[in-house]
Amino acid sequence: MSKSLPKGEFELISWIRRNQGDDPSGGVLVGIGDDCAIVDFSPESFVLVTTDMLMDGRHFRLKDDGPEAVGYKAMGVNISDIAAMAGSPRFAVVSVALPRADAVAVAKGLHGGLKRMADRFGVVMVGGDTNAWDGPLVVSVTLLGEPTMAGAATRSGARAGDVILVPGPLGGSLFNGRHLRPEPRIAEALALAEAASPNAMIDVSDGLASDLGHILEESGGVGAELDADAIPIHPDAVEQSKSYGVPPLEHALHDGEDFELCLTVAPDRADALLASPPPGVQLFRIGEITAAPGLRLRTADGRSIPIEPRGFDHLAGANQ
Amino acid sequence: MSKSLPKGEFELISWIRRNQGDDPSGGVLVGIGDDCAIVDFSPESFVLVTTDMLMDGRHFRLKDDGPEAVGYKAMGVNISDIAAMAGSPRFAVVSVALPRADAVAVAKGLHGGLKRMADRFGVVMVGGDTNAWDGPLVVSVTLLGEPTMAGAATRSGARAGDVILVPGPLGGSLFNGRHLRPEPRIAEALALAEAASPNAMIDVSDGLASDLGHILEESGGVGAELDADAIPIHPDAVEQSKSYGVPPLEHALHDGEDFELCLTVAPDRADALLASPPPGVQLFRIGEITAAPGLRLRTADGRSIPIEPRGFDHLAGANQ
Repeated sequence: MSKSLPKGEFELISWIRRNQGDDPSGGVLVGIGDDCAIVDFSPESFVLVTTDMLMDGRHFRLKDDGPEAVGYKAMGVNISDIAAMAGSPRFAVVSVALPRADAVAVAKGLHGGLKRMADRFGVVMVGGDTNAWDGPLVVSVTLLGEPTMAGAATRSGARAGDVILVPGPLGGSLFNGRHLRPEPRIAEALALAEAASPNAMIDVSDGLASDLGHILEESGGVGAELDADAIPIHPDAVEQSKSYGVPPLEHALHDGEDFELCLTVAPDRADALLASPPPGVQLFRIGEITAAPGLRLRTADGRSIPIEPRGFDHLAGANQ
Repeated sequence: MSKSLPKGEFELISWIRRNQGDDPSGGVLVGIGDDCAIVDFSPESFVLVTTDMLMDGRHFRLKDDGPEAVGYKAMGVNISDIAAMAGSPRFAVVSVALPRADAVAVAKGLHGGLKRMADRFGVVMVGGDTNAWDGPLVVSVTLLGEPTMAGAATRSGARAGDVILVPGPLGGSLFNGRHLRPEPRIAEALALAEAASPNAMIDVSDGLASDLGHILEESGGVGAELDADAIPIHPDAVEQSKSYGVPPLEHALHDGEDFELCLTVAPDRADALLASPPPGVQLFRIGEITAAPGLRLRTADGRSIPIEPRGFDHLAGANQ
């Protein structure tokens, strides 16, 4: 690096600051360019925090997908976690390890995608950490949000008898690159929380069976029975099935990265909700929480088949 | 991965939860194991946010240093950023990309180091994202804190005439691996903020010249003059100089990762502070902020030599 040239990092950070736009939230007291950001959550003082890291070759392929799509996904998956708590996303920080050979171009593309998704949900990027190295692209986003007034929807409140609902079809997110274009269900989650106070809620990132399994585990070891015929299957899963021969229902149960909600609602509230769902929200009743542990699939001919969670394991293949 | 075995990721997360210990803060409403953590900042609703990512080969060498030292440093550098704002660190989330071959052992060592540093400052780890891949270890910590009652110390408030102070010696942090053992100056920063309301403050992570340069830039283009003889030089810089021949003062000016504070204080308050520093806080007066821009070094024989910032550039070598 020539000492007479402006330093790459600070030049890039200046570029990012120029391309930040306004702060629509009015909640940023100190933004990019200091040791910390300072953000204002008043009148609330409860803060939702979530973080997700995406790595080249695991969650995206930089060469095929391009940095803009990576940024869009990285912000989207975090917003989806805030949706799963029925919260409102507010402020994000982003740390990146950039491949050295193309660091500045990748950083600018990434920022464009991050900002495009952030702007859709009023999220302000308030800071980050920018590095280059000889390794592949790694992006880590941490997102802060506000819980809803109705109270956060956690994974741990499911009770036997609860009705299990999903607001959209599942499976095949890899087929058309849909995993790169998450549609965080913020509005739907807020509307559902207000209308029916779900006992538990999660977003489907690891796969329906695996994520519902998290709810069962966190809710003290209750179980669940799903209706094979009631699970809405995404057209992508049907197409993928034609190409690879795995039944569409398997995709709907086990594929990850749908970023759709899955919630459990007390039976009386579920009936009312299904009779009169929030405007624009579709709802599929896919099964019930049971006192008996384990996850089972009820088929049309009356059989009950155990389902093993086998969604995306982030340590798959790791030496344990 | 065998379907009949517990899944590696969830087994590891269970281990981390068992090894979390209590929540000394009482501020964690929802911790590890949900889509988001929920933390309580009441009665304050202002939140400090900072993030730092460390990569193998850039900020540490996993093979030589071991995962415990990496975790200790990763948490420490973030706490140091909270110190630089005169804040109190509270809650952290940690995302990691683990080298697949040794993922679980590395994760456990890392967690031990993260927790050892976190415990020293009452920080609670409330969530994270754990992944394995074929690349080197990457750790990203995001830390939330509370601003001090006296108001946060930003980089942007330095004024001509301010006295520049550092509370400890600088340089040579690489020599004995001291960069792996940051000593975040939380107590010192809080005491200095209370005693003297610094106009600007930063922690020395990129190098004194570079970090003071950030203050000058963020403070509207003021300048600074440093006294060559007044800059406290760390014994490590003296030792390193013997081995490599670079003058100790060069190390003190340009080495990074001292994680010492650098602050600017109005002249009258600086005199009072130097006459009666907070208990246990040493202070070195190393120069003054000037209306004339640029950073200069005043030598004993009366010369004034321009200093080019050339601390650690995180994009050094990147193709721009």
